[in-house]
Amino acid sequence: MLRASKRARSLTISPIRKLVPFAQAAAAKGKKVYHLNIGQPDLPTPPNFMEKIRTFNKKTISYGNSQGDLELIKAVQKYYHSWNMDYDLDNIYITNGGSEALEMAMLTTCDPGDEILVFEPFYPNYNTLAKAFGIKLRPVATSPTAGYHLPDEETIVKKLTVNTKAILLTNPGNPTGVVLTREEMDLISRIAIKYELALIVDEVYREYVFSGKFESFGTRKALANNLIITDSVSKRYSACGARIGCIISKNKLYCKEFMKCCQARLCPPTLEQFGAAALYDTPPSYLKKANEEYQKRCDTIKAELAKIPGLISSKPEGAFYVMVKLPVDSAEKFAVWLLNEFDVNGETVMIAPGDGFYATKKKGLQEARLAYVINCDDLKKAIGLLAAGLKAYPGHLQVV
Amino acid sequence: MLRASKRARSLTISPIRKLVPFAQAAAAKGKKVYHLNIGQPDLPTPPNFMEKIRTFNKKTISYGNSQGDLELIKAVQKYYHSWNMDYDLDNIYITNGGSEALEMAMLTTCDPGDEILVFEPFYPNYNTLAKAFGIKLRPVATSPTAGYHLPDEETIVKKLTVNTKAILLTNPGNPTGVVLTREEMDLISRIAIKYELALIVDEVYREYVFSGKFESFGTRKALANNLIITDSVSKRYSACGARIGCIISKNKLYCKEFMKCCQARLCPPTLEQFGAAALYDTPPSYLKKANEEYQKRCDTIKAELAKIPGLISSKPEGAFYVMVKLPVDSAEKFAVWLLNEFDVNGETVMIAPGDGFYATKKKGLQEARLAYVINCDDLKKAIGLLAAGLKAYPGHLQVV
Repeated sequence: MLRASKRARSLTISPIRKLVPFAQAAAAKGKKVYHLNIGQPDLPTPPNFMEKIRTFNKKTISYGNSQGDLELIKAVQKYYHSWNMDYDLDNIYITNGGSEALEMAMLTTCDPGDEILVFEPFYPNYNTLAKAFGIKLRPVATSPTAGYHLPDEETIVKKLTVNTKAILLTNPGNPTGVVLTREEMDLISRIAIKYELALIVDEVYREYVFSGKFESFGTRKALANNLIITDSVSKRYSACGARIGCIISKNKLYCKEFMKCCQARLCPPTLEQFGAAALYDTPPSYLKKANEEYQKRCDTIKAELAKIPGLISSKPEGAFYVMVKLPVDSAEKFAVWLLNEFDVNGETVMIAPGDGFYATKKKGLQEARLAYVINCDDLKKAIGLLAAGLKAYPGHLQVV
Repeated sequence: MLRASKRARSLTISPIRKLVPFAQAAAAKGKKVYHLNIGQPDLPTPPNFMEKIRTFNKKTISYGNSQGDLELIKAVQKYYHSWNMDYDLDNIYITNGGSEALEMAMLTTCDPGDEILVFEPFYPNYNTLAKAFGIKLRPVATSPTAGYHLPDEETIVKKLTVNTKAILLTNPGNPTGVVLTREEMDLISRIAIKYELALIVDEVYREYVFSGKFESFGTRKALANNLIITDSVSKRYSACGARIGCIISKNKLYCKEFMKCCQARLCPPTLEQFGAAALYDTPPSYLKKANEEYQKRCDTIKAELAKIPGLISSKPEGAFYVMVKLPVDSAEKFAVWLLNEFDVNGETVMIAPGDGFYATKKKGLQEARLAYVINCDDLKKAIGLLAAGLKAYPGHLQVV
């Protein structure tokens, strides 16, 4: 019988997108759904993106450079310089979104059977891509009650094996919104250097930190040979659909392989690259305003969540996510119930069930990720619906 | 030491792009280089692509559907209907160019260690993607003297093992330009069905066949469950830089996995999809004219190549490639020499060395692929330069 490969069948459906059919059914019945499930910012993309694209006037949309368009690479270089990180042009490779950057990072650092250290909960596509490439994720637990911060050095080092080739993390955190402390960054850097591990960091939310200044791993010179940064314009400039990201490293051995990966898919899309170069010219006021808006929403969601009995929440300090532990039998059942069976005056809310953010089985079953990508008024309504839903849900656990 | 993975290091550099640094150096010295190395059509992209994109007016470039934009999926469906192939909307998945379609086809059909039957010479990225996913290519030889047509059933079947999961081919052929005969298609279909193999076919050049009507594997009902078609707008509409392709199958088990692969990279690029939908509304006269132009070039290159002593050529009947065996010690050395050391009045020619189109080591060393993607006058000049280069090249083999 013609079946799909075991590897393909083992891939999990995105927890962020798996309940979409239920949401569509709810919408078809006329229900209004507040979407807290997906990190799709509602802010407008800077208009210079489309303005530039409209001026594209080449007669033939031909293959570009595999590494990416030079204009865009230079724009990325300049942007990193403004963050006190100096990269050569051949340290930077343009990718189809942050997703492809992550794919190249995994392929470049790991052979089949190799392991990557991750901190649970983490971005779900880490699971999918690792399975596609035969890589094993070694999860280090963090917990809701410890605010999803890192455990001590001993606990982390215990997870390393001879097959561990990399540490992979998102900072500011997705799904938790947690920003690593200086001490945590010291710890991670020390381990990466001591055990000769690649350190793959996704810092796409670096502009969205709400107290103090964000520190990038890229400013640590001792890490130069270990570090691979994956990046994207998606969240920075509210341009998720453009699918323009990049992968950056000072390690020449890695860069050589990035280039081969780039050649295997020929080039990134022409017009979206052309527009993305203009995004990097967006006045700093855009990012400042976006930061303020997300900070306001962060304060709002924290205040609203604090009113819900029995709910434990991460203390988000960046990005636009908060991870919560809910007083329910199953966060997924609850999420489906919210869409199928619940409404207040024809309105309900959609959340992303937590277990998909874990590699360890049966973990995160009562957790959920909430993305605060809607305005403060709607956010209040959405969390109000979550609170009302929790009260009415048959699988609600008694809060003692 | 922090090294790249063995898997990454084993990836080969594209034979089509590996000599680009030499071409750039030649151009920097003021040499004019005729590019026969890359399948980059010079024809203009239909203007409706950019016209449509300029009208895009959404404020936020947000994530699209993972499967692709419905408008584009419907356009692809309609296009296939015009070729007498009827696909449901959930048989069609939009990809980042034909490359990603190929990636999804491999991942969906093969586990690590599984094998795919290919016919040498073949499109070089088959090698790269197979290595990335731990898949082994099982090459069946075809030869310049047999016009690169398929061997008999016994020879092909002998290459099958218990681990063979798929047959992968391009028709019309890249790099040979050969179009499969009805008998060859019968043979391949029979083997795929009898041995329960996926049949992955890349038919991106189906509009560019110069005698008789092209027959798609997709019109063969008995193959419905085996067939995976990878496709792209790149060559059809001279829009290689758009990176818009698709993967199509009627096998529901495969489609389920395509969808998971799609979710892993979130969505294809928004604007290029928006424009690509308009490409499918291009008047048929565009493709007719393109076909006539390529046919003229095909006739031209065949006539010019026939004048070169000791050169053996495929008999191209489609696409825009011809594979040649050259009377030289090494086609790669010769190609580099053409760029570095040779010119006639400041002009030279660039070709793609043949060994990168083989999986078997030491094969294709005297062969090269020529892409006829320049106008007939330039093509004549380019082949004239090739002939003059052969005469002057120190590693030229005596023709007996």
